[in-house]
Amino acid sequence: MPALMIHPGRTRFSSNATDFQLGIASYSLRNYTLDKTIEITRRLGIPNLALKSMHMPLEMTDAEIKGVKKKINDAGLNLYGAGVIYMNTEEEVKNAFRYAQAADLKVIIGVPKYELIDMVEELVKSTGIKVAIHNHGPGDDVYPSPESVYEKVKNRDPRIGLCMDIGHTERIGLDPAAEAKKYFPRLLDVHLKDVDKSTAEGDTVEIGRGVINIPAFLKVLKDRNYEGIVSFEYEKDPDDILPGLSESIGYARGVIAALQ
Amino acid sequence: MPALMIHPGRTRFSSNATDFQLGIASYSLRNYTLDKTIEITRRLGIPNLALKSMHMPLEMTDAEIKGVKKKINDAGLNLYGAGVIYMNTEEEVKNAFRYAQAADLKVIIGVPKYELIDMVEELVKSTGIKVAIHNHGPGDDVYPSPESVYEKVKNRDPRIGLCMDIGHTERIGLDPAAEAKKYFPRLLDVHLKDVDKSTAEGDTVEIGRGVINIPAFLKVLKDRNYEGIVSFEYEKDPDDILPGLSESIGYARGVIAALQ
Repeated sequence: MPALMIHPGRTRFSSNATDFQLGIASYSLRNYTLDKTIEITRRLGIPNLALKSMHMPLEMTDAEIKGVKKKINDAGLNLYGAGVIYMNTEEEVKNAFRYAQAADLKVIIGVPKYELIDMVEELVKSTGIKVAIHNHGPGDDVYPSPESVYEKVKNRDPRIGLCMDIGHTERIGLDPAAEAKKYFPRLLDVHLKDVDKSTAEGDTVEIGRGVINIPAFLKVLKDRNYEGIVSFEYEKDPDDILPGLSESIGYARGVIAALQ
Repeated sequence: MPALMIHPGRTRFSSNATDFQLGIASYSLRNYTLDKTIEITRRLGIPNLALKSMHMPLEMTDAEIKGVKKKINDAGLNLYGAGVIYMNTEEEVKNAFRYAQAADLKVIIGVPKYELIDMVEELVKSTGIKVAIHNHGPGDDVYPSPESVYEKVKNRDPRIGLCMDIGHTERIGLDPAAEAKKYFPRLLDVHLKDVDKSTAEGDTVEIGRGVINIPAFLKVLKDRNYEGIVSFEYEKDPDDILPGLSESIGYARGVIAALQ
């Protein structure tokens, strides 16, 4: 396949090379095959993918995982992460790192049982693979907020940090921009989305149609030279995702262009 | 049908009520029926429509035109204009104003033969309907650039002005933002799009993926309190328009939000 032209309009306004990159969290495409996920990601001009288990099952052998990685690379895309991966037993922790090593991932977006975090830290140190713990908002007893993650990892290896889901952050009544500032040193990955209410009842909507102040959030990342990836996790319209995901991606790109 | 919720995220950052509104130029949906055009416009949360003749034929009787108008109003949308309408004979000029009166349009986006402009001006005065002359870029002998329109209307009734097509403006090697500043007093309508080259060979692409500096252009409209409508005219993928049109609309909304 030809090399991707990744929205050249954006780089036109760019004064430096430190802009963060965009990705897609493939949970968005949970009702689509891996092949279709790759096709849509390419069409949208997004360079990076983080796969959820329906697109790369956790039970796959190393050889099967390497096959998925090759297919994605051959399409001109970068498989940088996977998740959300739940790790509730030692076996699940070991398997998550085996899986991540086989796919040569930079980051596991994960939810480790808190009692297993020493083991997770050891494996982060021995493999060099980061673990970004995902905050799930109201109803998550262990990691509801960015702070709840930060407090549990702040004295650990810096490669254990936060995948900040801004939808769940807003749903728990917090401002994603302010939270990103507070916990920036441990911000390793982002799930970008929008929700229609700042309460537990908030549902995901097209980015820009909800209540999250997206320009303020992205400005924090830009001003601090965030070096991670910002991945779209679009949960609405799971069987007809292209219009809403396209609108969401367009919105974020427009904000980024206007912030230059 | 329920009242439309027009991207409430935007108004959150809005400090005043002077923001311009968004619309769709239905030439974008030339391969879709009127019903489908209405459905897509609603899904995208766009409040305003300007119809091209495939959706409201110029030969329609007044009663038929009023039927189209009612259908659009009943869907919660505003039929504000029509075009591009070519007016090469006196009969075509008369019919364009009859059609626009029947639909109670605010503006005709038109290309009147220059020899007929006295007659057009008379009808603008007698009906109160504006005429926004559309620049078509390289290859258009009469109205290639915003300036070529402006020079022909600057001493006429202020309700004859420009529908600035920023794609054709870029294709003729001009900067849409600079042109919008120069001819702002006669800017009555806008066709928003992006193109991949600043030459006659430029093709339309998703907004944000091309070469036009969209934030700079929209900033001119915002800073000068543009009171017209900015309509998307998306010409790529005519049989599969939703992803690219959605991305384009998202991009413009993102820019507008970030400019607040």
